[in-house]
Amino acid sequence: MTETLPVTDRSRLRRLHERGHFDRDTINAILDAQPMCHVGYVRDGRPYVTPTMQWREGNHVYWHGSSASRALRSETQAEVCLTVSILDGLVLARSGMHHSLNTRSVMLFGTAFKVEDPTEKLQKLGNFVNHLYPGRYEMLRPDHTQDLKATTVLGMEIAEGAAKIRTGGPSDDEEDYALPIWAGVIPIRMEVGDPIPDPRNLDAVEMPAHVRDFRYGG
Amino acid sequence: MTETLPVTDRSRLRRLHERGHFDRDTINAILDAQPMCHVGYVRDGRPYVTPTMQWREGNHVYWHGSSASRALRSETQAEVCLTVSILDGLVLARSGMHHSLNTRSVMLFGTAFKVEDPTEKLQKLGNFVNHLYPGRYEMLRPDHTQDLKATTVLGMEIAEGAAKIRTGGPSDDEEDYALPIWAGVIPIRMEVGDPIPDPRNLDAVEMPAHVRDFRYGG
Repeated sequence: MTETLPVTDRSRLRRLHERGHFDRDTINAILDAQPMCHVGYVRDGRPYVTPTMQWREGNHVYWHGSSASRALRSETQAEVCLTVSILDGLVLARSGMHHSLNTRSVMLFGTAFKVEDPTEKLQKLGNFVNHLYPGRYEMLRPDHTQDLKATTVLGMEIAEGAAKIRTGGPSDDEEDYALPIWAGVIPIRMEVGDPIPDPRNLDAVEMPAHVRDFRYGG
Repeated sequence: MTETLPVTDRSRLRRLHERGHFDRDTINAILDAQPMCHVGYVRDGRPYVTPTMQWREGNHVYWHGSSASRALRSETQAEVCLTVSILDGLVLARSGMHHSLNTRSVMLFGTAFKVEDPTEKLQKLGNFVNHLYPGRYEMLRPDHTQDLKATTVLGMEIAEGAAKIRTGGPSDDEEDYALPIWAGVIPIRMEVGDPIPDPRNLDAVEMPAHVRDFRYGG
């Protein structure tokens, strides 16, 4: 099922060309495939872009950080742009002009809210851990009250935004296909390496399934 | 030699904690290791974050796009924040609080300028191609005048910004090391797959060295 994403202010999306996708399933799939995001905010009229991790719960995205972070404080109750992007490949064409990137990206716009309720905040942080590493949160030393105070969780409704996807090979000018130039795609992907145990792990501790079977963004 | 990056407005960097690095060599190394960047700009008081590719030439970073792009038009002669980030690993600790990311990132602030001179613009676009694929630009169908018109090249001086780097394993609360919890690092890296030739490549065309030996960001 494809759900159409409500877009409350289409004028902000005019820059998106024909590769723009607005359906919710497409947006959700990209958010779920790429935990890293870049959050843009404005302070004193100037733009800032901070890399962080996001996770989705239904109709919302969340991110978190130190309560002392100026970025998070500037984002609270402020307009933000949360962008997620995945580089899938480099597209080499027969002219410089048609070189391109195979990417999947999402831009979300909205007002970030702080998760204030301590019980909800704890739940969100647990969800974040388990989103990356299923079942891990319950194995951890429980959060201290001061841990919670030191951490800010921000959220935003997925209500305005767009996805953009490019796939496939180069699209050259028709007459250029006759030229003896190598064209094609160099695929790129995020690779997960062998986990490196902390030297201070206790001898009896085994690598859990959520580490052994870890899939990035999957 | 380590050159200190001039920072013209330190107040904007206060949010950077002890992991902040300001030397030019560190910043250059991260810019050169990660072509993808996220450019933040402000339009009508609102933040936008657009993923694109950057390349460095000495003391400047450049990026480009369609001349019809609202993003690029909004960035021209405007303040931007260009952020480059590399995810090197996921750090799993014994409490949720100390989970972290091994990352290298750079935030650059400045006013973007448009490369107007046609000769310089052509040179920059050639540099971009050759930066990714050494020697490729000279093998391509030369750029048409209309290609150049359809493309905007923006640049920014590397004058204000900071790098942030985290490496190594988890840093847990001392008493938590006694707990039977697996901790460590899951390494992440960008992997280059086998190049996929365009089915329309001419039979006699061989894969060039810049494709066969391609290294992402390196």
